[in-house]
Amino acid sequence: MNIALVGAGNIAWHLAMALKNTDSPVKEIYNRNRSSAEELAKEAKAKVVLDLKSFSTEIDIIILAVSDEAINEVSAKLNVKPGQIVIHTSGSTEITILKSYFNDYGVLYPLQTFSKAILIDFKNIPVCVEGSTLEVSHKLELVAKLMSNNVLFVNSAQRLALHIAAVFACNFTNHFYSIAAEILSDNDLNFDLIKPLIKETAEKALIISPKEAQTGPAKRNDQITLKKHIKILEKYADWMILYQKISQDIVKISVKNQASHK
Amino acid sequence: MNIALVGAGNIAWHLAMALKNTDSPVKEIYNRNRSSAEELAKEAKAKVVLDLKSFSTEIDIIILAVSDEAINEVSAKLNVKPGQIVIHTSGSTEITILKSYFNDYGVLYPLQTFSKAILIDFKNIPVCVEGSTLEVSHKLELVAKLMSNNVLFVNSAQRLALHIAAVFACNFTNHFYSIAAEILSDNDLNFDLIKPLIKETAEKALIISPKEAQTGPAKRNDQITLKKHIKILEKYADWMILYQKISQDIVKISVKNQASHK
Repeated sequence: MNIALVGAGNIAWHLAMALKNTDSPVKEIYNRNRSSAEELAKEAKAKVVLDLKSFSTEIDIIILAVSDEAINEVSAKLNVKPGQIVIHTSGSTEITILKSYFNDYGVLYPLQTFSKAILIDFKNIPVCVEGSTLEVSHKLELVAKLMSNNVLFVNSAQRLALHIAAVFACNFTNHFYSIAAEILSDNDLNFDLIKPLIKETAEKALIISPKEAQTGPAKRNDQITLKKHIKILEKYADWMILYQKISQDIVKISVKNQASHK
Repeated sequence: MNIALVGAGNIAWHLAMALKNTDSPVKEIYNRNRSSAEELAKEAKAKVVLDLKSFSTEIDIIILAVSDEAINEVSAKLNVKPGQIVIHTSGSTEITILKSYFNDYGVLYPLQTFSKAILIDFKNIPVCVEGSTLEVSHKLELVAKLMSNNVLFVNSAQRLALHIAAVFACNFTNHFYSIAAEILSDNDLNFDLIKPLIKETAEKALIISPKEAQTGPAKRNDQITLKKHIKILEKYADWMILYQKISQDIVKISVKNQASHK
């Protein structure tokens, strides 16, 4: 199949790289900012298209790797030929956003955190597909399987839940690494110190359930330590509130679990 | 040196294993619950001691691997001979808690999350030491270096900050894996789906700074997606509040960074 790409951001970049050297490489790329499109096109060995109406008739699937709020705008401008499929890559946008613009449409959502600077082995990334028809779903499955060994059908409601879970497990987790980094720096301690802990915490979750893996003062309902920590966090007002709320949540679950074991 | 251990919990267990087959193995173990002491003593090839006053005179260092609130109680009961060093292993307890009980005392704090079920390579764990005198510090350094290649001197204030940073980077992070697991389960999705993301999020933080690694709707200040997520989270009241507070924090930092780049 012949693939075209709208966008040249993180997801566009990683999709193009994942499809490079497969049977369905990205052949054409459009991006609002032309120089970014040219940069990606060079890497992906694709052609830059100068406006959204100019994708060639050979294209089978147009992937909108754009921000959620640009999906409507881009869709309205596209000039799609019969049989061409248009898909978006958004975790939190329903498939039906594309319904009023196209006959055949779908979603291809790779569940991962993408930074241009970091190379990713796409083969292990779960790629969630949803098609407007069984035929579209099947075609998307074929393309997704070129990129990943972990392809699954996920409907729009599930995909939204998956995206929210990902925000907790990835975005918020990373933000907590940032908070740790700042607290360490304020105390003349190197962020490297905490790296083995970050690594082990993630690796544990891959082996035992996070419920079993939970440790720390809140898990032990150790109020003396919790109070000491909160006292120190007074100078970081926002984080003190977070500390209290999350600790309360962990204490609550821990106390409930203990009661149910009695 | 000859080491004795008070306690048979997670930290006691991992310390004993880390010192096994070194020049300073754990020789004697006391634990309130005798059968746990026996279990650990068997693994560590150590002797069980039946009360806190009965450690032999050969012992050079007694490690209190007990809960923070038990440090005073255990210290008061110990019968220490001249030259014996007593240390605790608590992140959030000052070294001076031991001052009124002993002449020579200190702290040995391994920065890691310990579960009995999970084997750990102690060699990479940062071990923070603090001694009541330079001589004690030096002895603790020697013992710590038998366990780990990553030994450093950290004072009590720094150790407390380190412990707080560890709560964010490990305990809270793991709690968010639990939240993700529950949201996935409620939507008939397997926790395995999110494992590559958990792995990649941690690995990124080892390579680039968490500030650079930050992604997601809050980072992009994508209010449409944030609102969608909050709407779904209405049925998880506590988590909705967490979602809002953490997102606000990320948005605030992100907006500040953008302004400073203009």
